[in-house]
Amino acid sequence: MSFAQNAFAGKSVLVTGGYGFIGGNLVRRLVQLGAEVTVVDALVPNTGANCFNLAQLEGRITVHVVNMTDEDAMREPLRGKMLVFNLAGQVSHVDSMRDPYSDLMMNCQAQLGLLEACRKHAPGAKIVFTGTRQQYGRPEYLPVDERHPLRPIDINGIHKVAGEAYHLLYGRLYGLRTTSLRLTNTYGPGQLMRHGRQAFVGWFIRRALDGKQIDLFGDGRQMRDFTYVDDVVDALLDVAYRPEADGEVFNLSGERPYSLREFADILVGVVGGGSYACVPFPEERCQIDIGSYYADSSKIKTMLDWQPAVPLREGLLRTVEYYRRYRSHYW
Amino acid sequence: MSFAQNAFAGKSVLVTGGYGFIGGNLVRRLVQLGAEVTVVDALVPNTGANCFNLAQLEGRITVHVVNMTDEDAMREPLRGKMLVFNLAGQVSHVDSMRDPYSDLMMNCQAQLGLLEACRKHAPGAKIVFTGTRQQYGRPEYLPVDERHPLRPIDINGIHKVAGEAYHLLYGRLYGLRTTSLRLTNTYGPGQLMRHGRQAFVGWFIRRALDGKQIDLFGDGRQMRDFTYVDDVVDALLDVAYRPEADGEVFNLSGERPYSLREFADILVGVVGGGSYACVPFPEERCQIDIGSYYADSSKIKTMLDWQPAVPLREGLLRTVEYYRRYRSHYW
Repeated sequence: MSFAQNAFAGKSVLVTGGYGFIGGNLVRRLVQLGAEVTVVDALVPNTGANCFNLAQLEGRITVHVVNMTDEDAMREPLRGKMLVFNLAGQVSHVDSMRDPYSDLMMNCQAQLGLLEACRKHAPGAKIVFTGTRQQYGRPEYLPVDERHPLRPIDINGIHKVAGEAYHLLYGRLYGLRTTSLRLTNTYGPGQLMRHGRQAFVGWFIRRALDGKQIDLFGDGRQMRDFTYVDDVVDALLDVAYRPEADGEVFNLSGERPYSLREFADILVGVVGGGSYACVPFPEERCQIDIGSYYADSSKIKTMLDWQPAVPLREGLLRTVEYYRRYRSHYW
Repeated sequence: MSFAQNAFAGKSVLVTGGYGFIGGNLVRRLVQLGAEVTVVDALVPNTGANCFNLAQLEGRITVHVVNMTDEDAMREPLRGKMLVFNLAGQVSHVDSMRDPYSDLMMNCQAQLGLLEACRKHAPGAKIVFTGTRQQYGRPEYLPVDERHPLRPIDINGIHKVAGEAYHLLYGRLYGLRTTSLRLTNTYGPGQLMRHGRQAFVGWFIRRALDGKQIDLFGDGRQMRDFTYVDDVVDALLDVAYRPEADGEVFNLSGERPYSLREFADILVGVVGGGSYACVPFPEERCQIDIGSYYADSSKIKTMLDWQPAVPLREGLLRTVEYYRRYRSHYW
């Protein structure tokens, strides 16, 4: 990480989606760094929002339960903010196909709401958007760099492309400073674990901890990279701190790609329970599966000195320990 | 054009945005070809919808005044349809920046409404979508072919990228057959002429007919290509008729590119009135201007034998004659 340790002390920062998985980890870190944190979250059921993620910070942060589609309601949370981490969004690919309208509302309309409110009430603010590998669709080459065409193959990916494009456009036109991080599979404490529609990593961890079988779709040889949430938080703080990141898009990646089979093997070893097996693709997953994916993250490594610092086994050890301790809040 | 003259006789066809400029011309042609035409139009004020465009067809077509965001209301218009020309949408770049929410509603939510209704009530239908050059953003090279990256620089372009992606996605997943035509500057009878926020071609024609000065932004050397609306209608019918077009995206172009100055010069000559002059870019236009653009349309020429048949001067002659005759309905 490349930000100064005192860079955020006393800074007034807004985190949207702050009760979510990555948002919650980011808010805790910002509070540790001495920032004055405001959280906006719509607490939409069945998304990653979990009040336990910020339970220990009660009284130390300001919370607004607001849907960002309500542009006027964003005025107060944005007052005096020069930095916004915009993590609010719908992240389930499967849900986006079942209910494309809700995905449109959360990943497009709400993003416009935030940006319109920012340009009116927080001009000059820096806004960090979180994109996704799903914006690329099925990779035409590997590893995927930021120049790879954006040809998403599900509704969620289409809307995340639009959401990112809004941010870059408002950055160019309205004096906002915007950056997008395109995330890959993030894992760690605080992730949604109640169902498997959102992130397969969380679901795999739950299955192992429940002593059950992890289903690998297809032959399990699909490659993925995995980023521990603390590394993602580092990257978010890096791009927020560094002006060179303004107007840029960055891939994140893990230390190296793993096959799903390797991942499951390491996970089952770390947990000391559960098992894994290959099963045929369910139809609704097969249609929107992107095959192997791993990112080229040399741009952020070169420009901002970011590196994933937590190896997979270490990250899984920390994650598993967290859920053993706080299981009741996530199961 | 490559469709058989009797290909549409007796066919039950839906045209969305049928009261608009291109929609109206398409509906008139389809009726001439013997099709049974149903029109869906929300008749949104300040868009291209103009009841005069279909006034002569009263009693020969079926009309539903419906907003496609109302998926349930699309059930009846879609009943028994195997072919849908989906021309409904918001097309003003400037308006999309002033009111991004309305653009989102018309170019994304309404498109999802149509596609969801189609997959439920008209499975197997062919759907022709009309995209735009604005999806490409500022050209990285000229002429722009279909492989050019999609990096739109205004809200309208972002939403048209999403709208096209929905169509291709629903085509792959749900057994619909979808094609997108990416249009460039279309001109001809029936275009919105009341204000200059939608299409500069229409506005230029009005200024000349009013004997006024046409303002060319910048030095007027920006290149554009122009397609006469009858050629666009040919292309729409071609891609509808030819199964090779399923799942494909095609650029349209004019016979050759013209600079805005050349275009204005020809227009003023055809009208025998008006004038033109270069003026500085207004800020809101400059920000979303894409510079020179002209398309490589060799894909549709090769695959489907489409050719622009109407040269610019001839197209302008027909257009000017139309507006002289029906001016009161458009001014």
